[in-house]
Amino acid sequence: MNSRMIFYILGHVLRVEGILMLLPGICGLIYHESEAFIFFLIAVLSILFGYLTTWKIPSNKTIYLKEGCVATGLSWILMSVVGALPFYLTRDIPSYIDALFETISGFTTTGASILTNVEALSHCALFWRSFTHWIGGMGVLVFLLAVLPLTGGSNINLMRAESPGPSVGKLVPKIHTTAMWLYGIYFGLTILEIIILLISRMPVFDTILISFGTAGTGGFGIRNSSCTDYTMAQQWIITVFMILFGVNFNSYYFILLKKAKKAIRIDEIRVYFAIIFISAITITFQILPSVKKLSTALCQAFFQVGSIITTTGFATADFDQWNNLCKTILVTLMFCGACSGSTGGGIKVSRILILFKSVKKELHSYLHPRSIRKINMDGKSLDDDTVRSTNVYFTTFFTLFTISLFLVSIEGKDLITNFTAVAATINNIGPGLNAVGPTQNFASFSTLSKLVLMIDMLAGRLELFPILLLFAPSVWGSILTRKKHV
Amino acid sequence: MNSRMIFYILGHVLRVEGILMLLPGICGLIYHESEAFIFFLIAVLSILFGYLTTWKIPSNKTIYLKEGCVATGLSWILMSVVGALPFYLTRDIPSYIDALFETISGFTTTGASILTNVEALSHCALFWRSFTHWIGGMGVLVFLLAVLPLTGGSNINLMRAESPGPSVGKLVPKIHTTAMWLYGIYFGLTILEIIILLISRMPVFDTILISFGTAGTGGFGIRNSSCTDYTMAQQWIITVFMILFGVNFNSYYFILLKKAKKAIRIDEIRVYFAIIFISAITITFQILPSVKKLSTALCQAFFQVGSIITTTGFATADFDQWNNLCKTILVTLMFCGACSGSTGGGIKVSRILILFKSVKKELHSYLHPRSIRKINMDGKSLDDDTVRSTNVYFTTFFTLFTISLFLVSIEGKDLITNFTAVAATINNIGPGLNAVGPTQNFASFSTLSKLVLMIDMLAGRLELFPILLLFAPSVWGSILTRKKHV
Repeated sequence: MNSRMIFYILGHVLRVEGILMLLPGICGLIYHESEAFIFFLIAVLSILFGYLTTWKIPSNKTIYLKEGCVATGLSWILMSVVGALPFYLTRDIPSYIDALFETISGFTTTGASILTNVEALSHCALFWRSFTHWIGGMGVLVFLLAVLPLTGGSNINLMRAESPGPSVGKLVPKIHTTAMWLYGIYFGLTILEIIILLISRMPVFDTILISFGTAGTGGFGIRNSSCTDYTMAQQWIITVFMILFGVNFNSYYFILLKKAKKAIRIDEIRVYFAIIFISAITITFQILPSVKKLSTALCQAFFQVGSIITTTGFATADFDQWNNLCKTILVTLMFCGACSGSTGGGIKVSRILILFKSVKKELHSYLHPRSIRKINMDGKSLDDDTVRSTNVYFTTFFTLFTISLFLVSIEGKDLITNFTAVAATINNIGPGLNAVGPTQNFASFSTLSKLVLMIDMLAGRLELFPILLLFAPSVWGSILTRKKHV
Repeated sequence: MNSRMIFYILGHVLRVEGILMLLPGICGLIYHESEAFIFFLIAVLSILFGYLTTWKIPSNKTIYLKEGCVATGLSWILMSVVGALPFYLTRDIPSYIDALFETISGFTTTGASILTNVEALSHCALFWRSFTHWIGGMGVLVFLLAVLPLTGGSNINLMRAESPGPSVGKLVPKIHTTAMWLYGIYFGLTILEIIILLISRMPVFDTILISFGTAGTGGFGIRNSSCTDYTMAQQWIITVFMILFGVNFNSYYFILLKKAKKAIRIDEIRVYFAIIFISAITITFQILPSVKKLSTALCQAFFQVGSIITTTGFATADFDQWNNLCKTILVTLMFCGACSGSTGGGIKVSRILILFKSVKKELHSYLHPRSIRKINMDGKSLDDDTVRSTNVYFTTFFTLFTISLFLVSIEGKDLITNFTAVAATINNIGPGLNAVGPTQNFASFSTLSKLVLMIDMLAGRLELFPILLLFAPSVWGSILTRKKHV
């Protein structure tokens, strides 16, 4: 294990986080808030520590998938531990465990909150809270790859560990350029949303923070009522952008290269839009009798479906009050998730597609035992490794899910609450049903349950393995002894 | 597709069912019930039809896995359709859909009932109802293999399609002898339970029917209160036998051969007993405060855990009233299921073991990318095909589960009811929670939901593929055109 290199990456992460934390500080200055001082203090300390750690460049810069995973897992934990400090020190969140929960929920773009009164927070804390979504959405290491010339050739392993989806495609041969493209598209879309929301006459502070939450598919609102108070036009704008940020970013790259046809031909994207459309229309007709107006029903249905499938977690309606068919659809969408290569969480549409196709293939091979059929996606046949790793992903996912469900249920909350709390955190959504419904929050859980849910959020965001690996004692052995063997 | 051979097998199944249906007829004669006449009528007609269909022995007796699956799926549907007739014609169950539901629930050893008042049934109907459990427990085709000299060499495909578990081991080289051994052990254990229950002074009629339900891990009770009215000693006897029938039958074969050591060394069995023990002890301490007496708490906990993990479904306590930790344990056990090669349903302990081991292996290959590690079970390494088919089983299982959940939720029952109703039928357990809890029944579901749950019961019992294959149009094409290609 090249632990020298892992520490080097951690140092960089700390430095980047310090620089980013200057922004909420500036926001605090604008609103004349004393809390800004704490943000500046932690920012400066992080930059200083980060600078010291990255002073000496390691001689061996090679990182394999293993180091990539460990570095990614540890980076996210470090980011969260440091990122929680301002909330705690400003007394905005008096308990450190709660502050950590909120920060992990932010970085992992979950949006599950322990706060009962969001509006009581200072502006700089609110800014930092939503900004963590934006940072976590595309990933810190992808950012590092975009701005730092981390040479060595095997950097794809860092990106692979942090990017959502069963297979990471390099857009262009150089990983540095790919990362720049991804962040460019991400940044551009965010700015576009801010501008359009400004045109719709939303307050400036709201536009920026809501856009952060949408872009990262996070879901922290800045009002206790989430997005209910915004006008219907504003809700539709948010809906469209939530759905756009759930699309595989590769397709935007194709569109920018004027290869729109290639973008439309991606199987995953077509299925993604079909699921959204069918679910939203079904829900519209289910809620129409109680909502009365068709335009309201359509807006509520599309907003909630877009919010849940992209795992954002904003709400404009208390869907816990909807009928059971609607709730079943939403719970299923929680697991489905957005496209791979987007900022969304969940299992991912492409994995579901691979799942269906492998079941179909298996049935086919029963019928025609002598024929060999490959699974096709986007016109190309999938290699066995992707299919195998998808199957392993599923089994790992359900194993982690079951264990978490058990640990959370020890404190005796009801089944629906426990089930949807684990589902909402492992899939990085935010709200669940019953005691963790859209009008409720996660504050009432015990410390044990909060710890379990934190691990679920991190594991969900990093596609399980980078976090689960950290539980293997042999990983720690080889980090601490700094052994060089591979 | 060798459809001539499929019809031949169906004919045999019909004949066997006719012969078996004479027993409830005789039972009716003993109790001087007029319903006995209907049982005799259907029995005679079945034997007659079966005799005509099997008159001409097909020249080509080869059956491949595909034909084995289709024959098994169709056999079970035929058995159920015919088996439901007496309930319907005697007006014991006035609706044919309900009668079919009850019969499928019987043959698949689910034990989910649509009857509100079991005690109103005639003795012969009660006998037939419990007897279907016993028939379905070991499987009709295994019985056929045991009694009929179906030569051809590829009969293992029939057994493979009907036997529970990821891999079917032939105990002895000849499939005919293996089937005889299995039925011998099954018959012997059932007789043993009847004798021990008789010694405990249970009424004769009860001992036979309860033993049928235990042996097949079915769960149809003959009293409205399920097993609550029996003495604690009788409840313990039933508990022990439920757990024994959930054990891999291979181990009994080893014990009979005086190779007890080999039986104990089966990984699955050790894990199975560990799960039962840990779950029951945990539940004991959870229910102790309300039950007061330790002996009662122990008896209730072990009975319910044994009943759920073996997917029997008898009840001595309304576990729907237990706290949420207990309910979570029971719901998890529903999915876990018994050992492979037993009469129990569910996912099976061995599949869960393979699942855990493949997750562990995947983590290991992240750490040591160059090492090749095989998954070991019982000291031998598992072949890739078993691991792959286990993964495919899981994905298929969850796909079927999700689709069923959707279809059932259309009628608007609550989430817990829908979720546990699907879980209880697909895993062949019987009772779920809430509206399908141990003191409730499945009568209130719509016809659509009942149809979905019937398919789930059959799919769950036959390990998914034999039933799902019947939905492939190409299968019907090749059956009806009687094409001979493979």
